[in-house]
Amino acid sequence: MSVDVSRRAFLTGAGALGLAGVATGLAGCTDAKPRPKTTASGSGDASVVPFRGAHQAGIDTPAQDRLAFAVFDVTSTSRDDLRSMLQTWTAAAEAMTLGRQVPGGSSDPDAPPADTGEAVGLPASALTITIGYGPTLFDDRFGLASRMPAALQPLPALTGETLQPERTGGDLCVQACANDPQVAFHAIRNLARLGRGTVVMRWSQLGFGRTSSTSSSQATPRNLMGFKDGTRNIKSDQHDDLGAHVWVGDESEQSWMKGGSYLVARRIRMLIESWDRDYLADQQRVFGRFRASGAPLTGTAEFDTPDFARRSGGEPVIPADAHIRLAAPENNRGVKLLRRGYSYTDGIDPVTGELDAGLFFIVFQKDPRTHFVPVQRKLGAHDALTEYITHTGSGLFGCPPGLAADETWASQLFA
Amino acid sequence: MSVDVSRRAFLTGAGALGLAGVATGLAGCTDAKPRPKTTASGSGDASVVPFRGAHQAGIDTPAQDRLAFAVFDVTSTSRDDLRSMLQTWTAAAEAMTLGRQVPGGSSDPDAPPADTGEAVGLPASALTITIGYGPTLFDDRFGLASRMPAALQPLPALTGETLQPERTGGDLCVQACANDPQVAFHAIRNLARLGRGTVVMRWSQLGFGRTSSTSSSQATPRNLMGFKDGTRNIKSDQHDDLGAHVWVGDESEQSWMKGGSYLVARRIRMLIESWDRDYLADQQRVFGRFRASGAPLTGTAEFDTPDFARRSGGEPVIPADAHIRLAAPENNRGVKLLRRGYSYTDGIDPVTGELDAGLFFIVFQKDPRTHFVPVQRKLGAHDALTEYITHTGSGLFGCPPGLAADETWASQLFA
Repeated sequence: MSVDVSRRAFLTGAGALGLAGVATGLAGCTDAKPRPKTTASGSGDASVVPFRGAHQAGIDTPAQDRLAFAVFDVTSTSRDDLRSMLQTWTAAAEAMTLGRQVPGGSSDPDAPPADTGEAVGLPASALTITIGYGPTLFDDRFGLASRMPAALQPLPALTGETLQPERTGGDLCVQACANDPQVAFHAIRNLARLGRGTVVMRWSQLGFGRTSSTSSSQATPRNLMGFKDGTRNIKSDQHDDLGAHVWVGDESEQSWMKGGSYLVARRIRMLIESWDRDYLADQQRVFGRFRASGAPLTGTAEFDTPDFARRSGGEPVIPADAHIRLAAPENNRGVKLLRRGYSYTDGIDPVTGELDAGLFFIVFQKDPRTHFVPVQRKLGAHDALTEYITHTGSGLFGCPPGLAADETWASQLFA
Repeated sequence: MSVDVSRRAFLTGAGALGLAGVATGLAGCTDAKPRPKTTASGSGDASVVPFRGAHQAGIDTPAQDRLAFAVFDVTSTSRDDLRSMLQTWTAAAEAMTLGRQVPGGSSDPDAPPADTGEAVGLPASALTITIGYGPTLFDDRFGLASRMPAALQPLPALTGETLQPERTGGDLCVQACANDPQVAFHAIRNLARLGRGTVVMRWSQLGFGRTSSTSSSQATPRNLMGFKDGTRNIKSDQHDDLGAHVWVGDESEQSWMKGGSYLVARRIRMLIESWDRDYLADQQRVFGRFRASGAPLTGTAEFDTPDFARRSGGEPVIPADAHIRLAAPENNRGVKLLRRGYSYTDGIDPVTGELDAGLFFIVFQKDPRTHFVPVQRKLGAHDALTEYITHTGSGLFGCPPGLAADETWASQLFA
């Protein structure tokens, strides 16, 4: 059996023949056609997101429903090992986003399979695989020190965080988003497997449901506090905002990052037991929005622009410490963030016996020093929400631009 | 705003008017109509599974895609507290399975909301909520000792398990299955909240993708080893098998359990790094099936009946220690199990640095002493798969029958 087959072709044993329009070469990736639904999971989504382009997929792509996120440390000190792994990862990632199996391996049944197989029969599910490089990758191990972007300087300590070392930092990250969680998990697991001997996984996070929309066609979902999240998020069709706030431009002293973006990940634990005991009116004051409609307290519909100046009885209608006031672009020198947030739960906190659940917050921006850091500094100091949350994990990664047809993550990083 | 409103009515603020066919009384639950899709999560599934009936929903219901499972210990020693909580839980569970908010609470905006709100706008998503009682609930605390079923005697120690106390045992379990993970999580969280002061959560498990089919209309999904799982599972239309193997019948000395079933949960960690290094041919010998098609090694299609007698070159084609041979009804005095399995991942094992991932295995049967225990004893001793798995958590719970129109879990247990 050929190894370059679609997952569906593998399923039906038709690999050698291929399925018209599916088992074409990788060169056909950008015009891949949606395939018929295969409903092994009951939620088949045949859509394919192009892997190559000016920007990496998974940033302004309409947010998929499920997330698997992993951070790796490079254990090899060999530049060649890292380069080789990134080359292998590129081919594997591209194949998986097409709904195909990991390429390579042997046709010999007495060899380990190249692909772990759990996504066989599942469609591409809009899988995107986005890579990012942490500040520590640019130390003296791999000859990359001269390519370290200034914007990648480690995040400062911030109020409102109790970071766990085992959920913080790391040399490399991979964000896998898909509309089927098994497809997202499969991607992370197979990259981890291909990286064995070069990297080890440092931490990972599964996000079970998205809490942000990055497309105007998506309804705004709710976070685990019951509120609509990211109403004012940058949407994928807002090209001016993407250019102004998300994509690295000519201002970067590292031209190889142009067209890329910086990813900040924060594991935000919600103290949901305390939150659930709060009154609805107070919860609404904390956010500055009505829970039911998502409208600002000064409006009636979700997308009404908040009126931060309006007062009632001598007090601002949207309180001074309301989350949406402190996070608003108009109160942060115009700064906007592109969020991809996901709800998580990791069982019971062994210390408190409460649910360890909350928001795995991913934010993309052209420079964390002008975007995430000052906004979070303000939120950590003043936001009424800080009483109910704590940041328990953190990562900062530079996501390079998208790949041209002849590039790999290796050739791009080690150009 | 009325509190007995659909989640969608709450969303639009139309609660007081209701939506025709939706905000009807609970008495209408068994003929609830599917509602139009609301796609806040992008995967809206409006189907409603009736909460009441001869059997609890969530056992022979076609397996939903996502699982949230929680185990509680009763911390109160008051029989009245437990009874009161079970009554409250019944009303909440019934409402949530209809896609409505948790009932109760106050119309006063200065009161904590009765519902935590994160499922507002999401359809019912085929949610089922199944309750089970552990052996420890029938000690002398609540006057239930005389109602302890003999079949609920604690599971014996079994080969192949390294059980973690923090993932084992417990007084009560709740299995929430739905096609949207946020709906399943919401159910568990709200029951936990309503139980505060009476119960504490002992352990919980999120299952991100189902690995079993319980309906002939569902394709067989793959587990994280890449193999189709549960091909020979009992299906919901196999009424003879359900009666013979799943539902408690007249043989039980506890008539209140008639129509119920016993739930065994096993958190089966897969040593996926070792598995991934194994050869495909050996993997197939371990299961006794071809990975691609799911066919037994003696067949060509998934549902071909395995031929355990066939030999080739003096050896059985399906090896003596193959999983499907040891688990097969024909090699276990006809015993069949109804499985509802889900893949899980809980991040990185802090000791080994490997992914903590595998199968959260739920099995229903009329008596674990004749079903799970002897089959697992055989598997633990001889199954080739034991090299690649270990059972790290375990629970045994008696799930009572379904509720009649005038019953609650409280009136049923304390009749």
